[in-house]
Amino acid sequence: MNALLLVAHGSRKQSSNDEVAALAQKIASLNNSFDLIGHGFLELTDPKAFDALSDLVEKGAKQITVLPYFLAAGHHVVSDFPEIMEKAENEFPEVEIKLLPHLGAMEGMAQWIVELASA
Amino acid sequence: MNALLLVAHGSRKQSSNDEVAALAQKIASLNNSFDLIGHGFLELTDPKAFDALSDLVEKGAKQITVLPYFLAAGHHVVSDFPEIMEKAENEFPEVEIKLLPHLGAMEGMAQWIVELASA
Repeated sequence: MNALLLVAHGSRKQSSNDEVAALAQKIASLNNSFDLIGHGFLELTDPKAFDALSDLVEKGAKQITVLPYFLAAGHHVVSDFPEIMEKAENEFPEVEIKLLPHLGAMEGMAQWIVELASA
Repeated sequence: MNALLLVAHGSRKQSSNDEVAALAQKIASLNNSFDLIGHGFLELTDPKAFDALSDLVEKGAKQITVLPYFLAAGHHVVSDFPEIMEKAENEFPEVEIKLLPHLGAMEGMAQWIVELASA
């Protein structure tokens, strides 16, 4: 099974965390190539990213694509994600885990913004 | 003239601010319906959002579309943008200024993520 894991910073503001959960749910409702969609956070709220990833493994995920839901490469993107990846690869060597660039660095962001803003 | 203004939070980390400037530049290099592309920040670095907007007006912008480059609706999105809009509408009544939803709330984010993550 293929899984997508969205990982956001996490906020003290519950509505911000709810936005992430709602986005994961919306992705799950779309026609997509992932059997499972998860979401997790680095700080301030649960589920934490590693727990969310473990949960996907428990549900049978054999490939997990991790998307850092961040616009800029700050400390979290630069340091936290490599750590999570290393821990996950050690703990789940049988699972193929792929880390995407953070959202703000994804190829196509500029084009997408042009389309959004022109609509 | 039509302008698009990207407004991000601003970071102590110069490379994060540079990412925003580079994105604005990339948008400008694409085929798009905007004559001018600007970028500004709410905090920690320059140009500040209102100054960036004023600069677009000086350059001749008659319509300005403001995109909050934020993934979640925290305090900044909820409070700062309406303030900036009010100030701008008072100062530049002849300019048509449109505030988009913050990036994370834009229709199509879920679909876009599916495409990115599946690529």
